[in-house]
Amino acid sequence: MNIVSIKYGSESIRSEIRNAVVDFSEMTAGIVAIESDVIRNGKPLVGYGFTSNGRYAATGIVKDRLVPRLMKAPEESLLSPDGNNFDPFKAWEIMMRNEKPGGHGERSVAVGSIDMALWDLVAKIEDLPLYQVLANRYRGGQVSRRVYVYAAGGYYYPGKDLESLKDEIKGYLDSGYETVKIKIGGATLEEDRKRIEAVVELTGDPGRLAVDANGRFTVLEAIRWGKALAPYGLKWYEEPIDPVDYAGHAEIAQMYDGPLATGENLFSTIDTRNLIRHGGLRADRDYLQMDPALSYGLVEYTRTLEMLSEHGWSRQRCIPHGGHQFALHIAAGLGIGGNESYPGVFGAFGGFGDDVQPESGYIEMPDAPGIGIETKSNLFEILQKL
Amino acid sequence: MNIVSIKYGSESIRSEIRNAVVDFSEMTAGIVAIESDVIRNGKPLVGYGFTSNGRYAATGIVKDRLVPRLMKAPEESLLSPDGNNFDPFKAWEIMMRNEKPGGHGERSVAVGSIDMALWDLVAKIEDLPLYQVLANRYRGGQVSRRVYVYAAGGYYYPGKDLESLKDEIKGYLDSGYETVKIKIGGATLEEDRKRIEAVVELTGDPGRLAVDANGRFTVLEAIRWGKALAPYGLKWYEEPIDPVDYAGHAEIAQMYDGPLATGENLFSTIDTRNLIRHGGLRADRDYLQMDPALSYGLVEYTRTLEMLSEHGWSRQRCIPHGGHQFALHIAAGLGIGGNESYPGVFGAFGGFGDDVQPESGYIEMPDAPGIGIETKSNLFEILQKL
Repeated sequence: MNIVSIKYGSESIRSEIRNAVVDFSEMTAGIVAIESDVIRNGKPLVGYGFTSNGRYAATGIVKDRLVPRLMKAPEESLLSPDGNNFDPFKAWEIMMRNEKPGGHGERSVAVGSIDMALWDLVAKIEDLPLYQVLANRYRGGQVSRRVYVYAAGGYYYPGKDLESLKDEIKGYLDSGYETVKIKIGGATLEEDRKRIEAVVELTGDPGRLAVDANGRFTVLEAIRWGKALAPYGLKWYEEPIDPVDYAGHAEIAQMYDGPLATGENLFSTIDTRNLIRHGGLRADRDYLQMDPALSYGLVEYTRTLEMLSEHGWSRQRCIPHGGHQFALHIAAGLGIGGNESYPGVFGAFGGFGDDVQPESGYIEMPDAPGIGIETKSNLFEILQKL
Repeated sequence: MNIVSIKYGSESIRSEIRNAVVDFSEMTAGIVAIESDVIRNGKPLVGYGFTSNGRYAATGIVKDRLVPRLMKAPEESLLSPDGNNFDPFKAWEIMMRNEKPGGHGERSVAVGSIDMALWDLVAKIEDLPLYQVLANRYRGGQVSRRVYVYAAGGYYYPGKDLESLKDEIKGYLDSGYETVKIKIGGATLEEDRKRIEAVVELTGDPGRLAVDANGRFTVLEAIRWGKALAPYGLKWYEEPIDPVDYAGHAEIAQMYDGPLATGENLFSTIDTRNLIRHGGLRADRDYLQMDPALSYGLVEYTRTLEMLSEHGWSRQRCIPHGGHQFALHIAAGLGIGGNESYPGVFGAFGGFGDDVQPESGYIEMPDAPGIGIETKSNLFEILQKL
């Protein structure tokens, strides 16, 4: 059992949307296809991965460091002890050989994309959906077949007014989402209040609206906004400040009683541990959004879940960033709290399988083997180019 | 005044040495040359930069994100208000446009290499050595013409015994270094004690030997080693544990009375602030080794120095990692505590100018304009390939 080839590339996911910090005019995603010599139905099994959304493709690292290390590794060094499948944990160690500690970013994205493709391949070799593989390995077979999802949108773009925002949100609610998220901090507080109130009119319950500042505010600004947001009783207040300013989070948590959410820009277990140690977040209400695809893959994510458990955090507090099928399987297989969804943005890199639609805010997991990228035709088309 | 071209590439700095965590068989450095339309002596002025040592070239990020942004920027957006020179602070903002917060690594290396080349160019346009430019801008012209340096070596490599280690160290002492540094943690404690004692025999004073574990130990191991090291009274005990484990540093600082040193694997002001806030380090004795070339360049380094000052740290506690001429100029121009030097390793990417030799542990700063990469013939030869 061997890897025949690892192909990779970079795709534009350019769009006109922006959040409070960046626009997406230059945004890219990295894509990966790992071809094995395991033949099923006359064709070799291929695992697919990509770099989630929101950080750039890390193709240079994939090309210069990770692929050469994997392709040079002896066959048996990549396999599980019984030799019947690949072992993503062993592949992880090989990818990270001769990598220094610290500096977790970009490299974590590159490793995450290959890790996703490896888990896709592992599950295809077992001929099971990934969530079932994970449930069998880590939860005695127990699957959470219904996964909580929320619709992330409400970006700023040129010419977008309150009416277009409402149309967008109405679309999400009509298609089966219960919770929606909109950007804040890219306009004045007064304008954002109007946006929030317009959306709450649609959801009815302010607990069905989350807001996301994408790390834009200073601590003082975040507190000022927090005071204005608090009376609404929103689902959560996301990334108020720089994601690495742990003590700043502790200050905000002192003042803002409602749920906070952060973590999509922490890319390793050790960085996340710093948030837990120093960020003053509250295990009974706050949300953690680390994205397995951006942060060294599922291998590292299992370490993050273990670390959280040691610190008294339930994995139910984790709702990953990224809106990809990989995190959907992790949610169903490992029993974390849910997953983000981008029904309307990021083109082929947003959304789930073609036939997958939420009902009352939950997705019923499909049965396709692997991650099921083949069942998402626009993304599969891009990956087949490799 | 405009940038005509930005050329870049990657060079192998492969060698057989290893520290406790990585070997250097695959190590690379990124190189950069920025050609301006400023003509001096009939030739266009060119600024040179590279990615320091020890992390990999970040060529993909330079190529895909940073160079396109700089080359698309309108001419005046890169210039100082009087239009007489380039402004590295403005260039920095342009390079970091559409970059999300967090994930400081790799990107910081890419930005740092271009930032180095820009400062080299800025100083050449002023026809001054960079340290003089920095002293004029930030210290009323006051230059520290003699810069403290120490010789970093003592790596592990195949077949190296105590005698070869002593020969290596003797070479450093004979060539004018007063302080030397060796690796620890890549052998047993017993073997490393012998290595330490062999070197102290040569330096006479244990305060002239620093040791470096490259982040290899767990906190418990680091404390065990610390207890064994403490009686020697060494110059410092460097990177005992993972550089991002701030609370772990605080535990070690509680136990180890002698100076600790860390920071070479922190790549931004905000990550360094976390070390200062949560790492329990002591402003009266510990050393900070952030490498301006690896951590978003001198632009970000000025912010780091300001942050340190706000937290009551003297810049004299800073002795950057990397052993490059850029940090030498920063030390002389901004008055930080000194600089690392690799007289024996990293080939063309170690060491300073051809005629620069330490005397009694200090380097007398040369007068060449810019960073003086032209006066380091082996490195200049590599950069001219661009």
